[in-house]
Amino acid sequence: MPFLDKYRLIIRDAISKHKLTNPPHQLYDPINYILSIGGKQLRPIFLLMSCDLFKGNIERAVKPALGIEYFHNFSLMHDDIMDKATLRRGKETVHVKYDENVAILSGDALMVKSFQMLEDLEPQLFKKCFHLFSQTALEVCEGQQYDMNFEKQSDVSYEEYINMITGKTAVLCACAFQMGALLAEADEEDSKNMYEFGKSLGIAFQIMDDYLDVFGNQKSVGKKHAGDIVENKKTILYILARQKANEEQRQKLNGWYTITGENIDKVNEVLAIFNDLNVGDSCLELIKTYSDQAKNYLDKVKADATKKQSFYKLIDYLLVRES
Amino acid sequence: MPFLDKYRLIIRDAISKHKLTNPPHQLYDPINYILSIGGKQLRPIFLLMSCDLFKGNIERAVKPALGIEYFHNFSLMHDDIMDKATLRRGKETVHVKYDENVAILSGDALMVKSFQMLEDLEPQLFKKCFHLFSQTALEVCEGQQYDMNFEKQSDVSYEEYINMITGKTAVLCACAFQMGALLAEADEEDSKNMYEFGKSLGIAFQIMDDYLDVFGNQKSVGKKHAGDIVENKKTILYILARQKANEEQRQKLNGWYTITGENIDKVNEVLAIFNDLNVGDSCLELIKTYSDQAKNYLDKVKADATKKQSFYKLIDYLLVRES
Repeated sequence: MPFLDKYRLIIRDAISKHKLTNPPHQLYDPINYILSIGGKQLRPIFLLMSCDLFKGNIERAVKPALGIEYFHNFSLMHDDIMDKATLRRGKETVHVKYDENVAILSGDALMVKSFQMLEDLEPQLFKKCFHLFSQTALEVCEGQQYDMNFEKQSDVSYEEYINMITGKTAVLCACAFQMGALLAEADEEDSKNMYEFGKSLGIAFQIMDDYLDVFGNQKSVGKKHAGDIVENKKTILYILARQKANEEQRQKLNGWYTITGENIDKVNEVLAIFNDLNVGDSCLELIKTYSDQAKNYLDKVKADATKKQSFYKLIDYLLVRES
Repeated sequence: MPFLDKYRLIIRDAISKHKLTNPPHQLYDPINYILSIGGKQLRPIFLLMSCDLFKGNIERAVKPALGIEYFHNFSLMHDDIMDKATLRRGKETVHVKYDENVAILSGDALMVKSFQMLEDLEPQLFKKCFHLFSQTALEVCEGQQYDMNFEKQSDVSYEEYINMITGKTAVLCACAFQMGALLAEADEEDSKNMYEFGKSLGIAFQIMDDYLDVFGNQKSVGKKHAGDIVENKKTILYILARQKANEEQRQKLNGWYTITGENIDKVNEVLAIFNDLNVGDSCLELIKTYSDQAKNYLDKVKADATKKQSFYKLIDYLLVRES
């Protein structure tokens, strides 16, 4: 999207400028690798956008934004080991391209680096940003833990699901928006509203991700169709389906979700239940609820109305993806 | 040792006071577990001792000291996965007691927590301590990487070895001593000398560790005799032996160090070569060199002579272990 491109260019430029060339290359090459295979770099863009909204100094925000991107990539490196994922952004994951030990250790180094990216800030601001960032980091770990817990848990409630995706996805978005505001010295109310805006947006975004896995255009989503069903993921679709299901349907779902591995009958039967129960539409309603929530927080922010337009556009861009 | 006990009590008390009880317990239980199985808790003791040396406020130093201990335990959790170690301090390692994913994720959370332990400090000091700590953290990762590289490298030089143990062991000791000085607002010269003192001490300590693996009293060392030989570790003994060996001995060593698994002939033959070449004595000389270096740095420190006595005692205590 053009309105994001100017920020993306800054981030890409900074990533290549900060390429890690010091020894041992066995530790730093995998970091350069995961950062080079791109992704949408949304989180650092969020930070820059937010800093810009409050007329902050974008240049000063670049390293912190990079820190957010580093942290996100650290978490991908480690999550991919835990999830035994072989592909990331269409390329080999770090633990497949190198090995698990490399992915563990390079991930660790990348996490340290992510915090270090705040070090150019003056002490007061550094401390404030570190506090936000490290608290977020811990919540991301908690989110990943809940996600792993779900694998062994047949009965995941809606609240548990929202709590999990809040940690796993939403808080880092929230952190990026708030840190941008902090760097621009926005007042506390605005900076908190930006946090809440990012959190609601992140939740909506993750629900959309679950939705697209099943109902999205396979090609533009870039992932295998209904991969979450194959992997028995407790997505929002599964949770809504279980809520709405009659006894027979619930029993069927329970049965299918004990089967592992590719199984076309399973995918088709589960999809049929999802369709019968209309969970796709319920899911879109939920996305609407959370994106409205995001808009409400944004409405409250005391900033230039024209600048705020890009944020309303952002919501639409993220949540009206190729569905 | 009685002169360390008062600090150790403070640390043990703080560990139990800061026990992690919030959910998800699957994430935090393993952290409580690894912290509860003890170890010598030397690094946080170093920090408190150093703070005390410069008449600093010990109470304010407790959480940063805990941060150092947290970081050390985070690195153990992850290193134990990488090294496939099953026992730590005579108890099951985290990835054995729980599983690898748990050890990865709880380790991550513990690393975040370790940095957070500095957050009570006022901004200037916080930033200074964070800078030292995070730089050290990165060097610890680098040290572990070099250690892993050595597994695939038959020809490890003395310099490479010292560089590796500096990262893997010495810098965190150095960091602890320097942070104690920073917290007590010692001047820059003293705080740097404390860093160098800790670094030399840490190097000497690790060389002693290598020595005791082969020449130590098995029972008091608490590890399997010559385990490093069984595992083909490129210890200082191996490096010194290769330096001093004639062509025949070098060929023999090379041969034995390609064999994996328990093999009594291998252990005996390698020990015979070590003894023929007198590497034990060379090793003790090296320990002397580094501990003298540590003493030199300590001599330069402008602090109460009677308080400094515990540091000289510390060197003896650490380096005249049950050898």
